[in-house]
Amino acid sequence: MLRSALDPRSVAVIGASDNPHKVGGRPILYMKRYGFRGAIYPVNPGRSAVQDLKAYRSIENLPEVPELAIIAVAGDEAVAAVQACAARGVKVAVVMASGFGETGAAGLRVEQAMVETARRAGMRLLGPNCQGIANFATGTVANFSTIFHELEARDGPVAIVSQSGANSQAIYTLLHEKGLGVRHVHATGNEADVGVAELAEAVVADEGVRLLLLYMEAIKHPERLAAAAAAARRRKLPIVALKAGRTASGQKAANSHTGALASEDRVVDAFFERHGIWRAADPHELVAAAELYLTGRRPRGKRMVVVSNSGASCVMAADYAEERGIPLAAVSDTAIQKLQKALPAFASLANPIDVTGALLGNPQLLAAVLPIVGEDRQSDLLLLAMPVAGTGYDVPAFARDMAAFTLAHETAVAVAAPQKSVRDEFTKAGVPTFASERVAMDALAQVADHAALLQRPAMEAGPQKPFWFPIGNPRFLHEAESLEVLARAGLPVVEHRLCRTEEEVRAAFGPPLVMKACSRDVPHKTEHGLVSIDPPDPVAEFRRQREKVAALAASFEGVIVARKAAKGWELALGARLDPQFGPVVMVGDGGVNLEALKDFRLLIPPISETEVVAKLRQLRIAPLLAGWRGAPPADLPAFARMAVLLGEAMLAWSGRVASVDINPVFVFETGQGALAVDALIERTL
Amino acid sequence: MLRSALDPRSVAVIGASDNPHKVGGRPILYMKRYGFRGAIYPVNPGRSAVQDLKAYRSIENLPEVPELAIIAVAGDEAVAAVQACAARGVKVAVVMASGFGETGAAGLRVEQAMVETARRAGMRLLGPNCQGIANFATGTVANFSTIFHELEARDGPVAIVSQSGANSQAIYTLLHEKGLGVRHVHATGNEADVGVAELAEAVVADEGVRLLLLYMEAIKHPERLAAAAAAARRRKLPIVALKAGRTASGQKAANSHTGALASEDRVVDAFFERHGIWRAADPHELVAAAELYLTGRRPRGKRMVVVSNSGASCVMAADYAEERGIPLAAVSDTAIQKLQKALPAFASLANPIDVTGALLGNPQLLAAVLPIVGEDRQSDLLLLAMPVAGTGYDVPAFARDMAAFTLAHETAVAVAAPQKSVRDEFTKAGVPTFASERVAMDALAQVADHAALLQRPAMEAGPQKPFWFPIGNPRFLHEAESLEVLARAGLPVVEHRLCRTEEEVRAAFGPPLVMKACSRDVPHKTEHGLVSIDPPDPVAEFRRQREKVAALAASFEGVIVARKAAKGWELALGARLDPQFGPVVMVGDGGVNLEALKDFRLLIPPISETEVVAKLRQLRIAPLLAGWRGAPPADLPAFARMAVLLGEAMLAWSGRVASVDINPVFVFETGQGALAVDALIERTL
Repeated sequence: MLRSALDPRSVAVIGASDNPHKVGGRPILYMKRYGFRGAIYPVNPGRSAVQDLKAYRSIENLPEVPELAIIAVAGDEAVAAVQACAARGVKVAVVMASGFGETGAAGLRVEQAMVETARRAGMRLLGPNCQGIANFATGTVANFSTIFHELEARDGPVAIVSQSGANSQAIYTLLHEKGLGVRHVHATGNEADVGVAELAEAVVADEGVRLLLLYMEAIKHPERLAAAAAAARRRKLPIVALKAGRTASGQKAANSHTGALASEDRVVDAFFERHGIWRAADPHELVAAAELYLTGRRPRGKRMVVVSNSGASCVMAADYAEERGIPLAAVSDTAIQKLQKALPAFASLANPIDVTGALLGNPQLLAAVLPIVGEDRQSDLLLLAMPVAGTGYDVPAFARDMAAFTLAHETAVAVAAPQKSVRDEFTKAGVPTFASERVAMDALAQVADHAALLQRPAMEAGPQKPFWFPIGNPRFLHEAESLEVLARAGLPVVEHRLCRTEEEVRAAFGPPLVMKACSRDVPHKTEHGLVSIDPPDPVAEFRRQREKVAALAASFEGVIVARKAAKGWELALGARLDPQFGPVVMVGDGGVNLEALKDFRLLIPPISETEVVAKLRQLRIAPLLAGWRGAPPADLPAFARMAVLLGEAMLAWSGRVASVDINPVFVFETGQGALAVDALIERTL
Repeated sequence: MLRSALDPRSVAVIGASDNPHKVGGRPILYMKRYGFRGAIYPVNPGRSAVQDLKAYRSIENLPEVPELAIIAVAGDEAVAAVQACAARGVKVAVVMASGFGETGAAGLRVEQAMVETARRAGMRLLGPNCQGIANFATGTVANFSTIFHELEARDGPVAIVSQSGANSQAIYTLLHEKGLGVRHVHATGNEADVGVAELAEAVVADEGVRLLLLYMEAIKHPERLAAAAAAARRRKLPIVALKAGRTASGQKAANSHTGALASEDRVVDAFFERHGIWRAADPHELVAAAELYLTGRRPRGKRMVVVSNSGASCVMAADYAEERGIPLAAVSDTAIQKLQKALPAFASLANPIDVTGALLGNPQLLAAVLPIVGEDRQSDLLLLAMPVAGTGYDVPAFARDMAAFTLAHETAVAVAAPQKSVRDEFTKAGVPTFASERVAMDALAQVADHAALLQRPAMEAGPQKPFWFPIGNPRFLHEAESLEVLARAGLPVVEHRLCRTEEEVRAAFGPPLVMKACSRDVPHKTEHGLVSIDPPDPVAEFRRQREKVAALAASFEGVIVARKAAKGWELALGARLDPQFGPVVMVGDGGVNLEALKDFRLLIPPISETEVVAKLRQLRIAPLLAGWRGAPPADLPAFARMAVLLGEAMLAWSGRVASVDINPVFVFETGQGALAVDALIERTL
């Protein structure tokens, strides 16, 4: 359907202007300039010709049904134009006017009516309040941005799909400055009908696109974006996305501006990760690795080698590599020996490799060093850092050396140089360049990490096991029920008895034990003094807790007598049913630290043990879990198995469970397992 | 003395070359080009003229003693030239040749002999292995960098002092690209004699310098750098420093390259902070706020207002402000009402203020909004974010509006725009510009934070109180001694008795108590089972510990019986005598977390309680200390008083104490104080 938007045979421009610098004039100017081959029908009741094209009084008067209509009139006229287009059988209408959903409830009603009109006629709608779409492969520029006038468009392998018009232009500007050709520039505005995800799907189908950049303030159709990501993954098309509104302040700003839906931002991280979409934080990050992606290199690892003609750059690169967790590649003894012969005596041969200022006098040094590094086959990424070059240096030779290196080896390479004149020589030779060493290192690490993300086996939900869940409708399961649900799902839980009578307490077990009242009305027991560790008289404690629950006027399901577990690391495991993204699994530091320090990570099931362990290793407390000062490490695989099962259960319960909190999970030494100690499950209402 | 380096009456060039693109030719070319007014004496035994200047056979043949000598010959010739210059009475020699200290022990010996020669004659030495110095105010370009050929130098308010030649050029390139004039470009190389700190002192004395940028891989003379910083602070000259070798990898790279001394990097942070030097992480960060500093604005606070013509930029700016901890300024109700009248109905009026795309059609919007923001007086920093402008926009008018705003208000302002053509208009109007919104926000926050740092009252060590310290020479004080030292210094310590006999144990106190063996040979007691909490039979426990210590063949000073303190937050307090920076105080998360999670901060005494509390609020565990979920907050002022006293004591002990570890310090609820529980003091050997 969106083919009619991106490659229509004919386009009507409603509100066509003879002035090419007005909203109704610019698309006509652009379509003529950028080689649109179909028919352009200006519609303007007051003119017989517009920009040297025959103009028509109305959409009804056109000699044929236009496939695409650009609606460049405002307010009621725009509403009427949508109706006319729908009646005439137009396939797609781009509504540029603002003043609809973004202004409040009244505007939203008009906008929704507009969509209804379109839907009934089978017409799709872009906008309103949208800058429009542009496809420079077909010359379809249904877009009123001034930027294509200022910065001449050139068809190329990059595509931009952005909710924001202004931001689509900012991204376009940054790509233009890098000399990269851009094919698609789409801005969706209010997204009353077509949104970023659907346009992304259409763009992914364009074989000429080799890098897709997205900007969103809300992910309105996650399943659609997931489908686009899956299609992109199949054809090895990387997607980098900027989802703004990451913080409370940002979401507030987004709400006031587009009415975007707020969501816990780390769920967005988890969603992108699950679908192999790389997340960028601002437009500069969004485009930073563009040249690297476009080389088509997909590094198999992240081992980086840095070569520089400056010792200072070597020091700064080593600093940054350590801080960013980028492994500096080893250099083999053989390679070291060869480097020794090739370089001055005082050159640093370990990675980073300092070819020293001698490069000024001896331009052959780089040609000598690069093959040694390449043949050593220890690295996946190579940065050449040249803080100084230019006059006196044989930069064209260096560029040839780098180009020869990339032909001979699969390493992903980049050059960092503050001087534009230096960068230009490398760009001419097809080598990606950066002004900043850190940005270059980030970009190299990004393509390596992104490649690893895309190479992960796709997790598919297996055949669903029947995970037990009790019938009933109170919001909270009481703790004994919660523990039973988890135990039946296969999670190890602390040994316990739900005791309803004093006799049952006597028959339970001896110390060490923990007693806690069980009431679905009192989900947080500690605050009410309803937890006791090794009480001297368990039966007396049973009575005390029963009376305390009665005093709270809460239901009394009994008292749980639990075997006091050996002390382990305290982690937290949880799950939530996110209104947008569905089940989400949470792993993190346990106890009060979970909320106070927010030391947790989210995953979208189905997940693997490996993925969970990788997330645990990113926690702030990871050094403690790894076994501090020779202590044995925590049994993270055991905890990970619990997380995997919880993810499967959340999928199997298909929406019946709102949340699961298991805090703490005691995790014991490697090989000793893990144990759910406290649990609370909440039903969806 | 360095005046002779920066403004000499005469310069000899030893190894002068007729080829202006050789090391011995470039300084002559540059001095002629950049207007050096003194005498230039090329020294070259094989030529009668060099670059149209009369040449001399040797330094002895010169008609006068040159104030400055550039030694552009290599190896033994350089050594001989240093001797000749010293003999002739030259004031300063710049030795460009490499092949000395940086190549190993043999080279280092030659280098040291060279310095000895110079010292005996009262001559100062720059280098060896140095690119040289350049002062474009006087045209003294004793510097062989090619960059002044490629990028025409222009005298201006910025100074660069860098250990690395290549990096000095990279920094120069970045400043040049910003259109900023640079007066000093000095690269010190091996720093056999003159280092970065001493040159910085000389540059600070130049009233024309308004921003000083440093690059170092080691801080060789902290006291000298501190003096330069103090002088800079007196004349309100900001210093931004890039100290590389922050990580173990970076220090390894620095060692192999200049033999720089490794130091704990956070001490460097503390040192810079104490002296009001802002620290940058790479050359781009080093220059990022340059234009802002040069406006001379020193913001009184950090409240930022963001104005944009794009809702997306507003969202991203709000996100970034929250992430970076930059407070978005409030907008008063009065101002909101005025904005409502000035802006379209759908504009977001809360900060960030979205003037919307309507700015394209109505260029007066900015002129309407800015005065409202200024007169509201709620903000110290203003960012105008224009992701799109250019063709169709009245950018010159916007630039005039911003210039008018800066005339009327003290707010520090910046413009972020990806389009260079847009930035150029603002630059012309004297408004600092940035390509990236985040970099602009960072730079604005930096000048605000840096101003706050420089406005702090300078901490001066007060009249020293006599802090008691026991005579003796074992490396470790035993714990009872350690606690006594702290108590006499005024720190609250846990109530305890050192019991040497069973009778003394009986006479100590009743439970709850803790018993721990006291032996200066066993600083870490827990590992040896020498700590017992509430032992059922204290006398038996005393015997057990005494036997255990005997079995370890360790000295036995007794057993400490300590009153078991109420449980508090466990923090750590410590101090170290840093070999370079002197006493350093450490505050952090206590117990094993101190080392495992490295959640600590360093301060250089003398310090104030306010400074300590500010550091505690930066800890990762700060949310817990602040009182999580309505719990009362920790008594941080009480802990801070302990840290202040420990700092004073470290200064008073003047080098006798190598380290103090107080871990844990129990910190109780606000008003309830804090208590040193375990302590270990180490003497310097």
